[in-house]
Amino acid sequence: MSARKTEGRVSRFTVSLPNALMHTLDRLRAGRRYSNRSEFVRDMLRAELVKDEWQQQAGETVGVLVLVYDHDTRALADKLTDIQHEHHGAIPAALHVHLDAHTCLEVIPLRGVVKDIRRIANQLVSIKGVRYGQLVPATGKRFP
Amino acid sequence: MSARKTEGRVSRFTVSLPNALMHTLDRLRAGRRYSNRSEFVRDMLRAELVKDEWQQQAGETVGVLVLVYDHDTRALADKLTDIQHEHHGAIPAALHVHLDAHTCLEVIPLRGVVKDIRRIANQLVSIKGVRYGQLVPATGKRFP
Amino acid sequence: MSARKTEGRVSRFTVSLPNALMHTLDRLRAGRRYSNRSEFVRDMLRAELVKDEWQQQAGETVGVLVLVYDHDTRALADKLTDIQHEHHGAIPAALHVHLDAHTCLEVIPLRGVVKDIRRIANQLVSIKGVRYGQLVPATGKRFP
Amino acid sequence: MSARKTEGRVSRFTVSLPNALMHTLDRLRAGRRYSNRSEFVRDMLRAELVKDEWQQQAGETVGVLVLVYDHDTRALADKLTDIQHEHHGAIPAALHVHLDAHTCLEVIPLRGVVKDIRRIANQLVSIKGVRYGQLVPATGKRFP
Repeated sequence: MSARKTEGRVSRFTVSLPNALMHTLDRLRAGRRYSNRSEFVRDMLRAELVKDEWQQQAGETVGVLVLVYDHDTRALADKLTDIQHEHHGAIPAALHVHLDAHTCLEVIPLRGVVKDIRRIANQLVSIKGVRYGQLVPATGKRFP
Repeated sequence: MSARKTEGRVSRFTVSLPNALMHTLDRLRAGRRYSNRSEFVRDMLRAELVKDEWQQQAGETVGVLVLVYDHDTRALADKLTDIQHEHHGAIPAALHVHLDAHTCLEVIPLRGVVKDIRRIANQLVSIKGVRYGQLVPATGKRFP
Repeated sequence: MSARKTEGRVSRFTVSLPNALMHTLDRLRAGRRYSNRSEFVRDMLRAELVKDEWQQQAGETVGVLVLVYDHDTRALADKLTDIQHEHHGAIPAALHVHLDAHTCLEVIPLRGVVKDIRRIANQLVSIKGVRYGQLVPATGKRFP
Repeated sequence: MSARKTEGRVSRFTVSLPNALMHTLDRLRAGRRYSNRSEFVRDMLRAELVKDEWQQQAGETVGVLVLVYDHDTRALADKLTDIQHEHHGAIPAALHVHLDAHTCLEVIPLRGVVKDIRRIANQLVSIKGVRYGQLVPATGKRFP
């Protein structure tokens, strides 16, 4: 990795990655119609910047936590409910979708400062039996 | 940009980007404790791969669309409702949170094949007055 | 109608009603296994009393408004959203179910003093195009 | 209780009830501006008829179950989730409002024939720890 500052305002650096990941990169790049790899990397970076800005912001904000879990895991629903009630001031309501006989989708809006939102989300996601969790900022930039 | 295949299984390419974005990259990289830029780029790529796998999958899946909009925009709520009803087979229910006197958070689970989910999401997000939209896969890998 | 107070603690009065409604009464009474009409009337009264107690109570309480409407009515969704946002402090979130291509079920929890809850419910129910509305107390007595 | 059919289309019967309930009746009647007791009884009967028609109807319909429970009761959330998943075809989604650190409001739309809706509602309401449950028809007549 080396950054060589060049004429005016452009910087360069070299990325090394396993061949398999390089093939992935080229496949994704082609599918999304980027004319070159730099452009693709730049857009990934800009998306990270948006996430980062959300996480750095001061004041109250809103995030949405998407959870998928298997409700057959013993005491899982009880634990999720317990944690949500502990933080009931931050969680106006939750939507529960019964995907099939075993799988639950739970969507939980969270209000507060980012630090608290992330802490509650982490508590919920780390419960045994949760298969998938993603915290989505609900503010800021438009859908790409 | 040039890819130079090297000994064994590692590839390399060069990324060029504006100085400001290079500084962003280094700030984010440091904050997330990556020891070098390649590692950071590799992880962004892997996250893109997860998204891509969701989008390539066959069969029925589930996504969650998070929308933020200003309900003062004329006819916006009507249009959102119209489009959702057109696709009522794909949308079991929606959760609406009244963030303040003007701002709405709407969370919409979507079931179906990815192509249809993305098409409906795009229709909803492109309505005039929608400030933010993000489609979250509700399957697959665990919270990073 | 005449109330004749009798021995001890029982009162009587006479009800007059159209023949058709009398047949309805007897059909409902038989279906619910009441041995006589007085018993049926007493139970209807007790249920009204429970509703009334909810409405008379002091302090904050919770009600749930169930609305069914035809979303094709112009500007209906906009008006519902407007009124809900005006009172966003009382409405944590709303659940919208797309029953079919035209019909919406909207379920709206309402927090506050009964007087305010009823006022907001009446505003929402009286919007042109709402086909059905019912406000359910979410406190108090158990399911009969 | 005696029904004396009279001139034309009016029937009469006598209701006997405890004095305390008679006072309740008169208080409610006055509060709702009914000019006499018969009128009040007739309106209660008509409301019962609406409920009954909903319960007798053939074909698919929709009801909304409102539950209030104390989430501290062990395994309660687990049982509620289990039963809802058993019937996931009938329950598109559920809304959970965290009323305070202990009390949950859960609102569950139910689709199907009335017999099935009532059976599922009864299963959910009879779980130990549920403090309140009410099944609301979501079709038919307008808010009184």
